[in-house]
Amino acid sequence: MRLPQLTAAQAPLTESIDAVDEHGQTRRIHIPAERDLTVYVDKRELVTLMTLGAHPEWLTLGYLLNQRLVASVDAIESVTVDWDVNAVSVKTREGIDRIEERTARRVVTTGCGQGSVFGGLMDDLDRVELPPGVLRQSQLYAIVDAIRLKESTYKSAGSVHACALFRGTELALFVEDVGRHNAVDTIAGWMALNEGPHAPPLRGSLPPEGADPAWGGPAPDRAAPQLDKVFYTTGRLTSEMVIKSAQMGVAAVVSRSGITQMGLQVAQRVGLCAVGRATNKHFLCYANPQRLLWDAVPPPAPERR
Amino acid sequence: MRLPQLTAAQAPLTESIDAVDEHGQTRRIHIPAERDLTVYVDKRELVTLMTLGAHPEWLTLGYLLNQRLVASVDAIESVTVDWDVNAVSVKTREGIDRIEERTARRVVTTGCGQGSVFGGLMDDLDRVELPPGVLRQSQLYAIVDAIRLKESTYKSAGSVHACALFRGTELALFVEDVGRHNAVDTIAGWMALNEGPHAPPLRGSLPPEGADPAWGGPAPDRAAPQLDKVFYTTGRLTSEMVIKSAQMGVAAVVSRSGITQMGLQVAQRVGLCAVGRATNKHFLCYANPQRLLWDAVPPPAPERR
Repeated sequence: MRLPQLTAAQAPLTESIDAVDEHGQTRRIHIPAERDLTVYVDKRELVTLMTLGAHPEWLTLGYLLNQRLVASVDAIESVTVDWDVNAVSVKTREGIDRIEERTARRVVTTGCGQGSVFGGLMDDLDRVELPPGVLRQSQLYAIVDAIRLKESTYKSAGSVHACALFRGTELALFVEDVGRHNAVDTIAGWMALNEGPHAPPLRGSLPPEGADPAWGGPAPDRAAPQLDKVFYTTGRLTSEMVIKSAQMGVAAVVSRSGITQMGLQVAQRVGLCAVGRATNKHFLCYANPQRLLWDAVPPPAPERR
Repeated sequence: MRLPQLTAAQAPLTESIDAVDEHGQTRRIHIPAERDLTVYVDKRELVTLMTLGAHPEWLTLGYLLNQRLVASVDAIESVTVDWDVNAVSVKTREGIDRIEERTARRVVTTGCGQGSVFGGLMDDLDRVELPPGVLRQSQLYAIVDAIRLKESTYKSAGSVHACALFRGTELALFVEDVGRHNAVDTIAGWMALNEGPHAPPLRGSLPPEGADPAWGGPAPDRAAPQLDKVFYTTGRLTSEMVIKSAQMGVAAVVSRSGITQMGLQVAQRVGLCAVGRATNKHFLCYANPQRLLWDAVPPPAPERR
């Protein structure tokens, strides 16, 4: 794999401002920074993203990958961010085939931030085969706990979304942005740089044939391997979030928030384990509970029985 | 004003599904519906919106108005929603001038949902002059309380954003959608149908010259009129949300959430009173506190002194 040349143009993530509270008292608070970043591909203006600016190079790479405009980082020669002009210049090795045509259709999606994908949202989805393995309940609790302990822009300034990639129970990358699709795209860019071609692994299998896509499948095998890659997001499990996870070869997504109808449909279709409302010991598994291994069932809460 | 002909194609807002909780118990829950709606203007495909489907006609009108593609509802002959094909057909009276050119630039913004506006985000902003008047603290508390009491899709299913338009302290319209920009656009569409041309009133004045744009301006006049129109949103005060409010002639926005840096900059520039973190009796005024009238200061909380 030939890696692209990248700048490392991180910008300050928060700004201090004065606000006035309900007592009329001025309080010094932090708010998240927010900058526009216009993406140029081979000198052609593609899109303007609004971003916190934490990892603009990974964001740009992940954006191009998740929009299916490039198949792997091999195709990219360099990514050069210049905050003086709020622009990122992407140089490809051989151009992007039919770029005019492929960026002509526009779908405005539900998510936060980068809620716009170039047409063909569902393209390639049927070719995705997610890796086997189960999400252990104990692993899920470790993930939620790791996020809880993370010092973050959210804690200091609020109003940002966070995404994280876990390997097993270990936090591999934690990203925040003003839009959560920026956060997931940034992780996609990082993964592509660190884990080879951006394509879901084609090993493994979907849930067994004949099993109800959502419920009633066979009980998980307690000897089944623990899922290696798990995705965490503070945002809702929308169709776009589920699609992007599947495209990244991630078979389980955990959210602090809920799920939308199309997010659920896509998760069922691709065999992705979708878990939401994950706080403390609580959660709800919306899709593919046969991929959950209940190894840490908490004692029943008296008030709920 | 000639009003367009509209269908009234409300779709079911929630769906019941089974989810599995941390005890392995199946629970029947509601999730928000989510549908794609492709907008055709004079038979030309413009965009696909992901929406809850509560008020697709107002959403479409508000989208066209807030994108500045039409100047008023007068320009629209009919809006016809057909859920069988997930499409809305807009017929204009005289076409949209230079539509190709005006929809060519794309800015992907921070917000939820309709996070994409056609270029020229800041266009016309300097021509906006917001109406005079103050937001009374008692009015703010009444607004937060009215929202708290509202039965909603959020309460039954979660994962939606809500916006509301208040006239004084009275709830005029409450809208939820899977994307909060859909919710604000829906309100814009409703306002345009019910309140004449979609243009901010040009009476009144900006904050006095020479006053610090954010702080330290003159104390508000206790005899100043109470602001007639106040906007409430559960979402963050992003630049797009503030711009849309200003375009709608609304001089105060109240949010349950925080503000982003560009949201703050725009609020300061147009003289909009931006209030966030509004829950119970707490809030923070981020911009133009001289438009707040402190008529209901709560007793100091002992733990914060």
